[in-house]
Amino acid sequence: MEVSVLRIGHRFVRDDRVTTHVALVARALGCDRIFMNEVDKSIGLMMDEIIERWGGRHFNIEIIESWKSMIKQWKSKGGKIVHLTMYGLNIDEVIEDIRKCDKLLVAVGASKVPRELYQVSDFNVSIGNQPHSEIAALAICLDRIFSGRELTKQFGDAKLRIIPSPNEKKVLNNSRN
Amino acid sequence: MEVSVLRIGHRFVRDDRVTTHVALVARALGCDRIFMNEVDKSIGLMMDEIIERWGGRHFNIEIIESWKSMIKQWKSKGGKIVHLTMYGLNIDEVIEDIRKCDKLLVAVGASKVPRELYQVSDFNVSIGNQPHSEIAALAICLDRIFSGRELTKQFGDAKLRIIPSPNEKKVLNNSRN
Repeated sequence: MEVSVLRIGHRFVRDDRVTTHVALVARALGCDRIFMNEVDKSIGLMMDEIIERWGGRHFNIEIIESWKSMIKQWKSKGGKIVHLTMYGLNIDEVIEDIRKCDKLLVAVGASKVPRELYQVSDFNVSIGNQPHSEIAALAICLDRIFSGRELTKQFGDAKLRIIPSPNEKKVLNNSRN
Repeated sequence: MEVSVLRIGHRFVRDDRVTTHVALVARALGCDRIFMNEVDKSIGLMMDEIIERWGGRHFNIEIIESWKSMIKQWKSKGGKIVHLTMYGLNIDEVIEDIRKCDKLLVAVGASKVPRELYQVSDFNVSIGNQPHSEIAALAICLDRIFSGRELTKQFGDAKLRIIPSPNEKKVLNNSRN
């Protein structure tokens, strides 16, 4: 199953930190790609640095001009869309259907999301019907999609690898070999 | 089970948005309280506004001076501590033990976390051993602690309540009754 993330409504400067977290979560929790509008250069540089050290060269950041035309193209190729919104159906009610998709786009908005996104999405899904955080919603959604397996994911091209420990920081540095 | 969140290492302005998300997630996903150092007033005002509309007056923001003395007090009253860190043991290996605690503090750091926190914590726990987001880590941790039940949590004192819908925004306004 191929999962990508679409970040929409990013506001320059104001949303930089949050969009960085969205991109980090997409990479760490098993996605292949994030689509976003043009954002501050620092976000791409930060991701490059993370990938250089912790692996994941397969992970792409794709800059798009318009989410509407991106989505049209996505759907024309048979891709499905999950839109995360506090107004949607509980993830646990629809997760079985979502897991059947081969090619999935998980859309997360920054500010208010245009009504059109509700209409073009195959699933409008809530991670709780309370206002909270698109970063948190994305994380729990991906955890459901991958049934928790994403938490033990290894990146083959990593220089650094953590040895999980109950009380200290243990890191293997493969680049020294 | 009583679950609180401790936010440490908040840096003024730089971390405001992220700390806001941490507080929103703590409230929305079933915690009773968040402890944090003094932060920008906007964070408290935003939480007040959310609670006023969406409920959760039981949820407290407690401003602390020092996380070290706060933790000492917490432990002296029999509370346990889960520290979320990418270096820790996989949450799924320790969740059964964590669920046995009556009174739990989930600690999330902003920047680099002092070594002392590893030592005083009962559980150093990773949500994947990859760098990502303390907001995402907190969300998945709470989802594991509450076994997903937090996603259907209702706030008795809410003015607004969402009726989950597959394709539109449906909101009940109780304050109009």
